[in-house]
Amino acid sequence: MSVLQPPAKTAGSLSPASSDAPRVGMLPSGPLDLISDVPGVSVGHATLEDGDHQTGVTVVMPHAGDTFLHKVPAAATVINGFGKSVGLVQLEELGVLETPIALTNTFSVGTVATAQIRAAVSRHREIGRDWPTLNPLVFECNDGYLNDIQAMAVTAEHYTQACDAAAAQFAQGSVGAGRGMSCFGYKGGIGSASRVATLTDGRSFVLGALVLANFGRLENLCIAGQPLGRRLAELANTKDAADAEPSGPEKGSIIMIVATDAPLDVRQLGRVAKRSAAGLARTGSVYGHGSGDIALAFTSAYQVPHSPDEPMPAVPMLHETRLDALFEACAEAVEQAIVHAMWRAASVTGRDGHRRRSITEALPDWRRLIGPIQTRNEI
Amino acid sequence: MSVLQPPAKTAGSLSPASSDAPRVGMLPSGPLDLISDVPGVSVGHATLEDGDHQTGVTVVMPHAGDTFLHKVPAAATVINGFGKSVGLVQLEELGVLETPIALTNTFSVGTVATAQIRAAVSRHREIGRDWPTLNPLVFECNDGYLNDIQAMAVTAEHYTQACDAAAAQFAQGSVGAGRGMSCFGYKGGIGSASRVATLTDGRSFVLGALVLANFGRLENLCIAGQPLGRRLAELANTKDAADAEPSGPEKGSIIMIVATDAPLDVRQLGRVAKRSAAGLARTGSVYGHGSGDIALAFTSAYQVPHSPDEPMPAVPMLHETRLDALFEACAEAVEQAIVHAMWRAASVTGRDGHRRRSITEALPDWRRLIGPIQTRNEI
Amino acid sequence: MSVLQPPAKTAGSLSPASSDAPRVGMLPSGPLDLISDVPGVSVGHATLEDGDHQTGVTVVMPHAGDTFLHKVPAAATVINGFGKSVGLVQLEELGVLETPIALTNTFSVGTVATAQIRAAVSRHREIGRDWPTLNPLVFECNDGYLNDIQAMAVTAEHYTQACDAAAAQFAQGSVGAGRGMSCFGYKGGIGSASRVATLTDGRSFVLGALVLANFGRLENLCIAGQPLGRRLAELANTKDAADAEPSGPEKGSIIMIVATDAPLDVRQLGRVAKRSAAGLARTGSVYGHGSGDIALAFTSAYQVPHSPDEPMPAVPMLHETRLDALFEACAEAVEQAIVHAMWRAASVTGRDGHRRRSITEALPDWRRLIGPIQTRNEI
Amino acid sequence: MSVLQPPAKTAGSLSPASSDAPRVGMLPSGPLDLISDVPGVSVGHATLEDGDHQTGVTVVMPHAGDTFLHKVPAAATVINGFGKSVGLVQLEELGVLETPIALTNTFSVGTVATAQIRAAVSRHREIGRDWPTLNPLVFECNDGYLNDIQAMAVTAEHYTQACDAAAAQFAQGSVGAGRGMSCFGYKGGIGSASRVATLTDGRSFVLGALVLANFGRLENLCIAGQPLGRRLAELANTKDAADAEPSGPEKGSIIMIVATDAPLDVRQLGRVAKRSAAGLARTGSVYGHGSGDIALAFTSAYQVPHSPDEPMPAVPMLHETRLDALFEACAEAVEQAIVHAMWRAASVTGRDGHRRRSITEALPDWRRLIGPIQTRNEI
Repeated sequence: MSVLQPPAKTAGSLSPASSDAPRVGMLPSGPLDLISDVPGVSVGHATLEDGDHQTGVTVVMPHAGDTFLHKVPAAATVINGFGKSVGLVQLEELGVLETPIALTNTFSVGTVATAQIRAAVSRHREIGRDWPTLNPLVFECNDGYLNDIQAMAVTAEHYTQACDAAAAQFAQGSVGAGRGMSCFGYKGGIGSASRVATLTDGRSFVLGALVLANFGRLENLCIAGQPLGRRLAELANTKDAADAEPSGPEKGSIIMIVATDAPLDVRQLGRVAKRSAAGLARTGSVYGHGSGDIALAFTSAYQVPHSPDEPMPAVPMLHETRLDALFEACAEAVEQAIVHAMWRAASVTGRDGHRRRSITEALPDWRRLIGPIQTRNEI
Repeated sequence: MSVLQPPAKTAGSLSPASSDAPRVGMLPSGPLDLISDVPGVSVGHATLEDGDHQTGVTVVMPHAGDTFLHKVPAAATVINGFGKSVGLVQLEELGVLETPIALTNTFSVGTVATAQIRAAVSRHREIGRDWPTLNPLVFECNDGYLNDIQAMAVTAEHYTQACDAAAAQFAQGSVGAGRGMSCFGYKGGIGSASRVATLTDGRSFVLGALVLANFGRLENLCIAGQPLGRRLAELANTKDAADAEPSGPEKGSIIMIVATDAPLDVRQLGRVAKRSAAGLARTGSVYGHGSGDIALAFTSAYQVPHSPDEPMPAVPMLHETRLDALFEACAEAVEQAIVHAMWRAASVTGRDGHRRRSITEALPDWRRLIGPIQTRNEI
Repeated sequence: MSVLQPPAKTAGSLSPASSDAPRVGMLPSGPLDLISDVPGVSVGHATLEDGDHQTGVTVVMPHAGDTFLHKVPAAATVINGFGKSVGLVQLEELGVLETPIALTNTFSVGTVATAQIRAAVSRHREIGRDWPTLNPLVFECNDGYLNDIQAMAVTAEHYTQACDAAAAQFAQGSVGAGRGMSCFGYKGGIGSASRVATLTDGRSFVLGALVLANFGRLENLCIAGQPLGRRLAELANTKDAADAEPSGPEKGSIIMIVATDAPLDVRQLGRVAKRSAAGLARTGSVYGHGSGDIALAFTSAYQVPHSPDEPMPAVPMLHETRLDALFEACAEAVEQAIVHAMWRAASVTGRDGHRRRSITEALPDWRRLIGPIQTRNEI
Repeated sequence: MSVLQPPAKTAGSLSPASSDAPRVGMLPSGPLDLISDVPGVSVGHATLEDGDHQTGVTVVMPHAGDTFLHKVPAAATVINGFGKSVGLVQLEELGVLETPIALTNTFSVGTVATAQIRAAVSRHREIGRDWPTLNPLVFECNDGYLNDIQAMAVTAEHYTQACDAAAAQFAQGSVGAGRGMSCFGYKGGIGSASRVATLTDGRSFVLGALVLANFGRLENLCIAGQPLGRRLAELANTKDAADAEPSGPEKGSIIMIVATDAPLDVRQLGRVAKRSAAGLARTGSVYGHGSGDIALAFTSAYQVPHSPDEPMPAVPMLHETRLDALFEACAEAVEQAIVHAMWRAASVTGRDGHRRRSITEALPDWRRLIGPIQTRNEI
């Protein structure tokens, strides 16, 4: 397993693009502050931005190889299950994923799952015949406010495009599956971040998160603990607040993909995944009734061969007492990724003229609304 | 809730068609010995039987109304999770199903799920916009031995056909989703049965099962406890045994749909669903590694309105100590439904000339291979 | 089910005692701001405070009647399972609790569980003979820093004392099971709070929480989102910080008991219980590896009779879309109860002279360390 | 990991004592046909047989060393949760057990759990102070028919005795925790068996089971698939049937401990444990409402060190597709262990003169009631 060299140096030197987004938490980031700081992980998007069609597909590639032949240890946790993701039954039973992780809108899950099957079968004609079938893995949120979701505009081709576009550097915000998503009444979408966890034995591992953020009531929004949403709620009748979604139940959902190069077994990955609930809560969510809040964690430290004739990995797992640093990293990376999903997003106008403004457009002076943020850079 | 009137009379008078299949267990059946003995439940098939395409769709309609507007209390249990069914995340969270239950082959799940969305949206344009999205519910087994599963021959139209064909009387065996399925080395597919459970307070309820049976190693096959498979294994080099699938790991899967008119809450439905594991084990299964063994139980005794403005049901649930009779009924109905899936099946020749013979064709003298069966009719 | 009349009036009139603790969240409290705002709920303590023995027992009585004869619908959730609580297996299966809820130290669980059996058997000699056995329900945290836990000083008599002492008005902080507990490096223990949730149909229900708080790393402590812990960490070499526990992994545990008079079924109670994770996260927890973080929710709206001959309740449950207000109330009540556990606690000196100071003693000027708190009283 | 040498030789040479009990299944047994065929595993009993006190303690020692320092990978499954076992919350979270596995009657769980704590603390004074607390692991069934369970006659001393008595050779039937247990209306108690699983790669591993059997309705009893119970039910008014418990709901419980030397991770151990449900169903159980049916599986192939400073194991786990042979072995070993619990049991007279006859006393001619059994020895 690789240790980031040198994490400390890069953590403070955020790119100019990111310097305008609030930084949360106390742990250093990886060089890119992206999930792709985990070795081998890449991300690609296919974005539809055409009138009523504001949607897309995002894929997270766990490694550069063939995920069916070299399966990836993974575990998921359902924080609130008002969601239509596919693939979790088998993932829970076998503890591996065997496709790229796909994200899209709710009504396109079937199309993308079928595309995953076709992509794997085109490579391995034995699948579903001499070999077992493939387990598609597709997560979703409902972008129906901005996107004409009933049009089902996503096609298999978009899945292929997203896979082909996968790279360590990738856009965030209103792109890919995030194109039509909303978050706390502003524009949401794809966000990513990473943190470096230094264990009690001195070893460091990186943990990255990528979220598809489409949740939240404005008045609950917290940034680094600061109740920005409540302060906005006070500013009644202002133009800013008027742009945000009217207060209602917490709708929408969030998908949280967590990757690490720490050598964890599947049970431990499940424990890490559950800490995404803490990061999510920090932003103000109570996991509303109508949300599909699901997290998946995988490791890049080893793979499980499809063929029983290949040797099984024999990696020393982390001692359980070493996990706390990774738990902290997971909560922070998820919280930061949600912030990035909002701060990296562009405003979008979509179906029936519906519009979501980015928080940076709607509240250019957001820093004035909250106090100084206690974070790594400031203490 | 309705009480079958009069169950005792009908239970002994099985139709001629069913008299040739072994009867298992001690409880009386409902009038049809089908899942549709549960009031309101109907079943429909769309069957593809064309050369390499031997597959289809089966739907179970929980009631005659609109399942989105009047949701059905339901719970599922994953006995072994090597399966690609969709819809279980939300079903577990909310405890209701809101579509017909669809069964098909593994690679057609995405297509049928999308068809379910389109069918609901065509009726309610608010879905995914002002209303939440729809939770598709599709179960699957892999019919790749007889069916060219990679051809993905199932279309949305087949789902519609199956829904339109739904009726209380329906065919079993090599029909609908069961067209290409195998069971214990012989032809499997759709089977159904029902049992009447008389509670300790004297009330009777009916419980029906419908299975999509596609599992089992020949040498493990038990009929009413009799090790038919082992006896066949002894008859080495016989023509009969040669036709059956060569011994290998337990592959394939089984989907078990359980319905009852007993007024159970969701937790209790989950307890009933788990007893399908006992019925399955009686036939010889140990829930093999590569199987997707999933059971779902629902009740017809009440529904949950989609609209919060409609009154919620206030039905007295069954006292927990009354459940045992339903547990017995579930195990028996599932065991019997598996027997029916085999004994009602016709032989099928499909992909690349692969052929599965029905057990009645391959072993017309099967009764000679086992002793007398201790069942309701014989004691 | 009862509706608090009138919640709005009482919410702003907190008792003087509570006015010195930070108030968190936006919902009004019940009249007492205690779990006993839920009708019928009472709490009792037995406290050992004698040199090395700083421990005790706390009980939550769900109603004033016989909990074995009239069982209480309940559900639990294990947020992190490094804990030795007993009773959850049967609670999960049957969805009821049938004893008072007991809290104590880790090594006294067996003693208190046995005391619960003896208490029930003394009332009903049929238990374990003609009737089923009793399911003890005991939660625990490890108070070994202040208490000589190996002495196992708690006896059955303390359980009886706590039951006898149960009342709607009860002490918080360093009492009962909370006597020896620590929280974020300061004194923790028992805390309680309540919130009134107004549903979208205009009805109001009360939700109360009682916690046994024994968790947290100082530098993670947040009060109403304000990173008090980090600010303390900045004040290096100060007398204040020196008193707090040296930074280490998040140890200890928290037990969270949630009660409501809303008519929820067991599945819904489970959903409510899970929102305690959000309240816990707001205080700075990431559910550390070594913590037993467990929540239990019950309703006072109806009971389930032990005898199958008594009529079962037939209460209209809440429509699922009405739950969001209760989710918010749960997160707030748990967060507030944790604050109360710290701010109501007295400093304690115990085993080997170990001492935990209360946060109010150690940081009398804590308000100067954080900004104004955005809460119900201030906007 | 050790491979039994040579399993085939020993499998057919059952001891005379065992030759009178029916043999079930097709796989060879280990040399002893006991759970102690798994290297390092031993079992001890403390038996109370004094008038109204017919009860005891049984312990399964996973290895000869210190289980707190060298924890044992383990997973449990709750088939039906009407049970009061302790220790499962932490076992599920951490995937290890750290004490001997104790079995006793329902009301003695607290006493034995406390005894486990005292035993560990006496060896390691750091527990609960500088080290975390200990997770007791105690399983139970209700022996209240034969034993005056309210007397709580089991003491800490009995736990110590059972530990001290642990050996590879041990008695079955009406001993230890099994002293007062009943099974299918006859005497039940402790049973054990083992099977040798030969994987698809040619390697062999042993899997052993030990059960505490206290469940079942007479009319459901099946032996090797033969419905012995139903045949007895036919013999109305006979002296044999009259001795058995009158027909009623399935009461009581079964605890199933499964051990193997196969190198499985915790997730895989959980999959193996679930197959005990198939073995249990084969004997006629439908997991009745009032039963606590719980299985635990552990491996002897490696241990997890308590200290993070010791190296973590790095054992190549079994490829998932190799598990089927272990699944079959688990179902068979559990089924056989239940048979042994009945056939090895002595008749017992206990509380208030209640008496359970052993099946061999009540039905010396049981073989005449069923046909020939298809098992390894006969084909």
